[in-house]
Amino acid sequence: MGHRRLLTASAPKTDGMSLPASVLSDTEIVATELTRIFDHIPSPAVRLTDAMRYATMNGGKRMRAALVMAAARLAAGGDTVPAGAVRVAASVECLHAYSLIHDDLPAMDDADTRRGKPACHMAFDEATAILAGDALQTLAFELLAADDTHADPLVRARLVMALATASGIDGMAGGQMLDLQAETNPMDLEEVRQMQGMKTGALIQFSAIAGGLHGGADAALADALERYSRDLGLAFQIADDCLDYESDAESLGKPAGQDADRGKASFVVLMGLDQAKQAASSLIAEAEDALAPWGEAATPLCQIARFAIERRT
Amino acid sequence: MGHRRLLTASAPKTDGMSLPASVLSDTEIVATELTRIFDHIPSPAVRLTDAMRYATMNGGKRMRAALVMAAARLAAGGDTVPAGAVRVAASVECLHAYSLIHDDLPAMDDADTRRGKPACHMAFDEATAILAGDALQTLAFELLAADDTHADPLVRARLVMALATASGIDGMAGGQMLDLQAETNPMDLEEVRQMQGMKTGALIQFSAIAGGLHGGADAALADALERYSRDLGLAFQIADDCLDYESDAESLGKPAGQDADRGKASFVVLMGLDQAKQAASSLIAEAEDALAPWGEAATPLCQIARFAIERRT
Repeated sequence: MGHRRLLTASAPKTDGMSLPASVLSDTEIVATELTRIFDHIPSPAVRLTDAMRYATMNGGKRMRAALVMAAARLAAGGDTVPAGAVRVAASVECLHAYSLIHDDLPAMDDADTRRGKPACHMAFDEATAILAGDALQTLAFELLAADDTHADPLVRARLVMALATASGIDGMAGGQMLDLQAETNPMDLEEVRQMQGMKTGALIQFSAIAGGLHGGADAALADALERYSRDLGLAFQIADDCLDYESDAESLGKPAGQDADRGKASFVVLMGLDQAKQAASSLIAEAEDALAPWGEAATPLCQIARFAIERRT
Repeated sequence: MGHRRLLTASAPKTDGMSLPASVLSDTEIVATELTRIFDHIPSPAVRLTDAMRYATMNGGKRMRAALVMAAARLAAGGDTVPAGAVRVAASVECLHAYSLIHDDLPAMDDADTRRGKPACHMAFDEATAILAGDALQTLAFELLAADDTHADPLVRARLVMALATASGIDGMAGGQMLDLQAETNPMDLEEVRQMQGMKTGALIQFSAIAGGLHGGADAALADALERYSRDLGLAFQIADDCLDYESDAESLGKPAGQDADRGKASFVVLMGLDQAKQAASSLIAEAEDALAPWGEAATPLCQIARFAIERRT
């Protein structure tokens, strides 16, 4: 735990394990909405709905959902999250769940477990898992485009556009491709930063920006959310590399140290563990600075940022 | 060729092999737009862009693109296709290409070839193919949501919503799941009709409806396009089953008779070849009837409908 303290030196008191209560209540609202959505899918393809539900309702941290909700609340300027923002949060969780299903496939990372439970293709089968990922991606866009999500169709179209940019060839999927290629062509630090910015950072960044967009953020807040989430996305991934390096399979719920085993470059491999942790901590401090003008109203977003580098899974 | 004549008895003169010239010029415009799109993807994941391009620019018939263009032209009431409709057509082709990549994967239909060329996972590798399909789905939604596609954001949001409904759990992906399950649980005719309506029909139906939506179709035309495309989608799949039954691998470019080999129910297996062909022909006649009030302006859509059951691949 010695190294872990480096990350928490300047952090507010949390147990380092879970999101604070105010944020957790947001993620519970999103989980309830996701359950409602899966319960109301009319398709006769029940096995596919079951696989989509299995992969989405699997005990994930829902950090992306929490970001959407907190940013939307801050942008709307009230105590409550604007109606419809929960659907944006549910959309991000569906998109994230799709990416995990496909990442775990035998032809990709070949991971049998996810969060300590059988991966989707183990619990069902490979074909069902491919289709469940496909249909979860589709559902993510459906949730953003639907009338109920926001009264202004321009906001809905922009949300779709932003999610597509974050998750497609210029974002998550492109980053995953670069990551696969890195198994045979090791990357330098700048290449790792670019790859991770696409693979993981873009969707985290979308989450904060989409919340702001839904809540009607003005230009200053939209800009601050962009800076906040760019730093957060990078710090999250550095912390992930640190966790991967340190943890064992039992506590992490997935095979640990697998990046190092494969000889792949990571922030830890390229920077060293201590420097990586200091970099993550600095980035989170900068993320918090970006939101300083919003004072206490930005506290939930700052708590999520701290959580991103304090979490142990 | 004796059986084939049953389908062409009441058709206008075409060679039964390719789309008519007016429609082909539309598909060339869409192909040019697709090339332009792939040429301008800025992502560093060049191998992924290459795989997306390979799977999309592969000599497909582009019937769905032709439907979008013809329906948009009819709805807009002029001789030219409204600006931006070509992006809707490109979107449908990306979505269709994604579905073919994933269908061909070893865990799905396990097809090594597609249109006589190596399937995407053979030309590249399985991981790249999974990601190329994923990123093509994302690109399809990005194309619909972008400002350039239509000046009215409500139209863009509705296009996204319609594509999501047609291609997700309640449409294409759900139908593919039912099709996979049919390998162990043979379906009756009504179940085959439902499965194919989701797996293949929904995207064909989207194509005509989206063209109408983009071109500003009034309620009467929107309703007619819906009836036309529902009949067309079903007829297309019946014709596909007939082709699969009759063709050999050389002329079709994919392993032939594979549904029958696996003991799966199909329209031909359940109806017999002659009755299936008559059903397809009747459906196309009904599709044409739905558009009769629009007279000669609907000719391209009628030609596409004829092509759907006269094609030999």
